Amino acid sequence: MNPGGAVIGIDLGGTKILARAVDPVDPITTLAEQRVDTPRTGGDDVLERMAAVVDDLDRVLTGSDRPPAAAIGVGAPGLVTHSGVLRFAPNIAGDAELAVAERISALTSRPVTVDNDATFATLAEWRLGAGRGSDNIVMVTLGTGIGAGLVVGGQIQRGANGFAGELGHVVIDPSGPPCPCGRRGCWERYASGSGLGRLAREAVEAGRAERILALAGGDPEGVRGEHVTAALAEADPGAVGVIDEYAWWVALGLANLVATLDSDRLVIGGGLATLGDALVEPVRRHFAALVMGAGHRPGVEIVLAALGPAAGAIGAAVAAAGMVGGA
Amino acid sequence: MNPGGAVIGIDLGGTKILARAVDPVDPITTLAEQRVDTPRTGGDDVLERMAAVVDDLDRVLTGSDRPPAAAIGVGAPGLVTHSGVLRFAPNIAGDAELAVAERISALTSRPVTVDNDATFATLAEWRLGAGRGSDNIVMVTLGTGIGAGLVVGGQIQRGANGFAGELGHVVIDPSGPPCPCGRRGCWERYASGSGLGRLAREAVEAGRAERILALAGGDPEGVRGEHVTAALAEADPGAVGVIDEYAWWVALGLANLVATLDSDRLVIGGGLATLGDALVEPVRRHFAALVMGAGHRPGVEIVLAALGPAAGAIGAAVAAAGMVGGA
Repeated sequence: MNPGGAVIGIDLGGTKILARAVDPVDPITTLAEQRVDTPRTGGDDVLERMAAVVDDLDRVLTGSDRPPAAAIGVGAPGLVTHSGVLRFAPNIAGDAELAVAERISALTSRPVTVDNDATFATLAEWRLGAGRGSDNIVMVTLGTGIGAGLVVGGQIQRGANGFAGELGHVVIDPSGPPCPCGRRGCWERYASGSGLGRLAREAVEAGRAERILALAGGDPEGVRGEHVTAALAEADPGAVGVIDEYAWWVALGLANLVATLDSDRLVIGGGLATLGDALVEPVRRHFAALVMGAGHRPGVEIVLAALGPAAGAIGAAVAAAGMVGGA
Repeated sequence: MNPGGAVIGIDLGGTKILARAVDPVDPITTLAEQRVDTPRTGGDDVLERMAAVVDDLDRVLTGSDRPPAAAIGVGAPGLVTHSGVLRFAPNIAGDAELAVAERISALTSRPVTVDNDATFATLAEWRLGAGRGSDNIVMVTLGTGIGAGLVVGGQIQRGANGFAGELGHVVIDPSGPPCPCGRRGCWERYASGSGLGRLAREAVEAGRAERILALAGGDPEGVRGEHVTAALAEADPGAVGVIDEYAWWVALGLANLVATLDSDRLVIGGGLATLGDALVEPVRRHFAALVMGAGHRPGVEIVLAALGPAAGAIGAAVAAAGMVGGA
């Protein structure tokens, strides 16, 4: 470890890059932070933007008498190979084979570790947040899509190619709605923010969600997840019903994961987690009815993520610290 | 390790107990074997029968100048806790909380390790059979029900309670047929031998399986999986169609597992595996169309189990050898 040193964790998103410099022995406390737009002009520009952010953070660090960051972690939204190649990232413009680890390392002259963004968020929650103390957790991030990370047998698991945890495209209803991925009834069609919007539009069409429709300006096609959450904030019964149905689909996917992996803690993060108990309580209720072997299995904890939207950057920093002997 | 010694692997099934004494350095070669009926009269009788089988195998071993077996592994059909308690086993009569490890150890005065039967079959295939060389495999045994074992990150994974791999009760179609477990559309309703029978009865009702109906004596309600395999042996097109549909459901479940775990090899065992290429080829074809990220993911091997119906006993022996420093 670099005493008094720092590491940088970067969360590369489709629209924003969040980068944090942290002390490797206390990765939750921020020494410096930057948030910039993700270039829409392709992979090279994305890599150069990240390198520029590292330069900026280094300047803040050296300005407060620390050395430049010793290592960098990058969480990326897509399939990331074990050697840090971003292979498939629908939200990043340009090439589908971006050697992020190698090229950021060349641009910044230091060790770089790259992984899927949800895997790094899971690493952070497991080491420092809502997953602490368990050897078998699944974290799901419920946002526009679904991300996930797995801790199985006391290890973050990345799978044979680094692609583990692509739960959004687990088929949960083969006769369900088509998914842009080409399959039908992927979990993401139900349990993501987009899925919530779809369930709400169905409720509107069935006449069960007048308030949601009103909040969407009376246009049934314009109904989105945010109209549900806005109606829920007014305790609208139609919104409660839609959230209950949404929670059932979340719980079904979680019950399937527990039948598969026998996890004892499930961590829910992502934008939908801001609903708090209004989401987690119906998820817990439906999960109890859906989980395999309920009468024989000790309780499975379903908890909200603790670290918020910076979990991905924090986890990337934790992994970077691991490269230089910290954390 | 016990030089020149032996260990015993026992596969406790709902109808039969298969026990093998093997050399810990070569667990595939049988030194002695016994197959007896599983008592239908409850857990105590089952435990005593297994202890009697150990005595019998010891006698064979000592008769050929070996010492008695140094350790015992028992694979049991149900939820097995980390401390070797069989907690839920619908096919074993009597108590639902059977301390198998503790009691067989007391009855036989030696170390005993107990795990789920499919987990031990997976251990055997991974170490000695069709799973060798991969760190990320799933083995599924397609029989009356579905069993499964997971190797993730180079470790057999048992989960928080020892219950990992209960894939038969992953819900794959929430509007599907009811399952005795209380849910709807469990994978077992499609991809087990019972599921094959159900798909065949649907094909018969739709007039797509005349030969299968004839082999069942003309009684649509009497159609079972074995009538499909008999018709398939005659290259009956109706049976080919039913197997193709069955293979689709098998492939769907496997594709979901690979999206979750990013396994690079899938091992198919159990009674249905005796169909060989007639099953595996359509499974591979459907899997290629169903797997997430097919264009970005190196090929996933789908292979038949290599060790046959003794895999569970062999894996139990491998685990027993591990207790005394062998294998």
